[in-house]
Amino acid sequence: MTVGGRRYAILAPGLFATRSAKTAHGVIAYASDATVAVIDPEHAGERVRDAVPYLASDVPIVASLSGALAFAPNALLVGVAPPGGALPPAWRAEIVQALDAGLEVVSGLHQFLGEDPAFAAAASRGRTTIWDIRTPPAPRLFTGDAYGIDARVVLTVGSDCAVGKMTASLELTRAARERGLDARFLATGQTGIAIAGSGVPVDRTISDFTSGATEELVLANASADVLFVEGQGAINHPAFAAVTLGLLYGAAPDALVLVHAAGRTHAHGFATPLLPLPRLIELYEGLCAAVKPAPVVAIALNTHGLDDAQASTVIAAAAAETALPCDDVVRFGPHALFDAIAPQLKSKTIPTQVGISM
Amino acid sequence: MTVGGRRYAILAPGLFATRSAKTAHGVIAYASDATVAVIDPEHAGERVRDAVPYLASDVPIVASLSGALAFAPNALLVGVAPPGGALPPAWRAEIVQALDAGLEVVSGLHQFLGEDPAFAAAASRGRTTIWDIRTPPAPRLFTGDAYGIDARVVLTVGSDCAVGKMTASLELTRAARERGLDARFLATGQTGIAIAGSGVPVDRTISDFTSGATEELVLANASADVLFVEGQGAINHPAFAAVTLGLLYGAAPDALVLVHAAGRTHAHGFATPLLPLPRLIELYEGLCAAVKPAPVVAIALNTHGLDDAQASTVIAAAAAETALPCDDVVRFGPHALFDAIAPQLKSKTIPTQVGISM
Repeated sequence: MTVGGRRYAILAPGLFATRSAKTAHGVIAYASDATVAVIDPEHAGERVRDAVPYLASDVPIVASLSGALAFAPNALLVGVAPPGGALPPAWRAEIVQALDAGLEVVSGLHQFLGEDPAFAAAASRGRTTIWDIRTPPAPRLFTGDAYGIDARVVLTVGSDCAVGKMTASLELTRAARERGLDARFLATGQTGIAIAGSGVPVDRTISDFTSGATEELVLANASADVLFVEGQGAINHPAFAAVTLGLLYGAAPDALVLVHAAGRTHAHGFATPLLPLPRLIELYEGLCAAVKPAPVVAIALNTHGLDDAQASTVIAAAAAETALPCDDVVRFGPHALFDAIAPQLKSKTIPTQVGISM
Repeated sequence: MTVGGRRYAILAPGLFATRSAKTAHGVIAYASDATVAVIDPEHAGERVRDAVPYLASDVPIVASLSGALAFAPNALLVGVAPPGGALPPAWRAEIVQALDAGLEVVSGLHQFLGEDPAFAAAASRGRTTIWDIRTPPAPRLFTGDAYGIDARVVLTVGSDCAVGKMTASLELTRAARERGLDARFLATGQTGIAIAGSGVPVDRTISDFTSGATEELVLANASADVLFVEGQGAINHPAFAAVTLGLLYGAAPDALVLVHAAGRTHAHGFATPLLPLPRLIELYEGLCAAVKPAPVVAIALNTHGLDDAQASTVIAAAAAETALPCDDVVRFGPHALFDAIAPQLKSKTIPTQVGISM
């Protein structure tokens, strides 16, 4: 960890304005670590807001690491997925250059940079370190210790992948902090971990240990008032539900916030129709009832792409369909939704050892 | 793979008569590979049936590998968990001796023997190989291709861990074969894999790839009539449910057989009460309905420890409680239960692409 906070140069050649740069975008939007420059020759000379308007940031975009060094970064973030998955040779040169210049290198790639002899040697020369965000923690089985903590645990769960669970957790954390609570965002995916500076990449844990790794993250933060745990996948997603359930049981939540993207009809990448929201709530609550009861207390609806009037209409419809508070925490801010669920976070639910609700 | 079938010596010093030897017991009871000797000084001179009566086997127990070599094994199975998890020095010597003698070494240990330089060198000297059963397959995401196969897929699911899912799958496979079907047992845990000679250790896969690894196993056997997939864990188990759900979605079953141990009241290792059978059925079917509908078609009740009259009583009670065929496939054989479910295996369920049942 870089002392005094990171000052990131973000490496995203040719990709900064694309979805492949979602970790980069997340760090710029939400991280407490600063971003001082973005490296993308295709947008060199622009500001971040020119390439990605919703980020509304004046951070400069430069053509190369050499250009970025003028802004005194102390870390290089590889926060984009290279096309085809393999690291392009040009990226390798800039990563080595950054390490030689003493920058910490932080990577969200599947491929671990720290295991690459050339990068390890450069880190040694530059007296710096490489942080591969996706490195899983040591294997640990779930113990049930998370059932006994005082902090209230709120987990975001989804109707699908990529609906905005991380963002909803981040926004609700912000609202809770502004209400004076010790609220913490617990990151479980590479973008969330890059934003938070720590966390557990649950989708890279061995399935036997997914719940145990999540529980360990919760236990390490048990002294807080409220923990907002970033959800992953969806219980009804054909490919990723194992991750979702490991996280659901491992976090031992007291309450769930269901996140849905308005207009989404099928599971990401599949022909599988999404379940209606009431049926999804039944499924999530039914699973929790088997180990530790937790109600869905609100719907966080992602209305990206609609105008405000359309957004208000779909929010009202989802609230009516589920009889739960519903809002878009990005468009309208998180405070209304947080205030709606706050009373339900005042006490812990009854642990499973005492009895289960059916 | 040893040509012509394995002739196992099973290494189980001091442990053969204990639960730690469950892989050894499973191989003796169910594998097509033969066991020619068991190595356990504490029972040397006895037969298997003397140490473990239910196995009803005349295989000799000897004090050492040297003694076992008299029975011409071509493979050594390390099918027991050493106390404390670390390999005792005495075992190392016998494993090296076996490799030097040209025996294939097959291991179900967490610790991979093939990664140990001393064992690798001995295998090279003996011109033989080491098979670490728990080695996970290469990462592969679930694709949905399993939805399109002609083979009917029957998955055993549990009310808990260690209730008899593997045994139920093996017995039903036997019954289907005796009815003339090309039925295959698909192994998903170390004991099942040792018995079948192949399979996928799903609990050692990365959670993102658990469903994909299971699907790959199913696709590799798509030409059969019926696939009986060995279940793992339980959807209501606090620690292991991620494995269970990855397997449930990855196998894309057409039908489920719910396995329960009579008298079991709490999740293995936890204070969590088990759900009543009808509620469990609802949970498993509700999850399947989200991706590909599959009904629970039968209850396989493990009545170990009861007498025949008591067993018949609890079987009748479970059948009445669930309105499903129920039997103990070990005590009373698998044929009655297989015949009860066979009509439901005649056609595939409607794939999710067409529509989901709610």
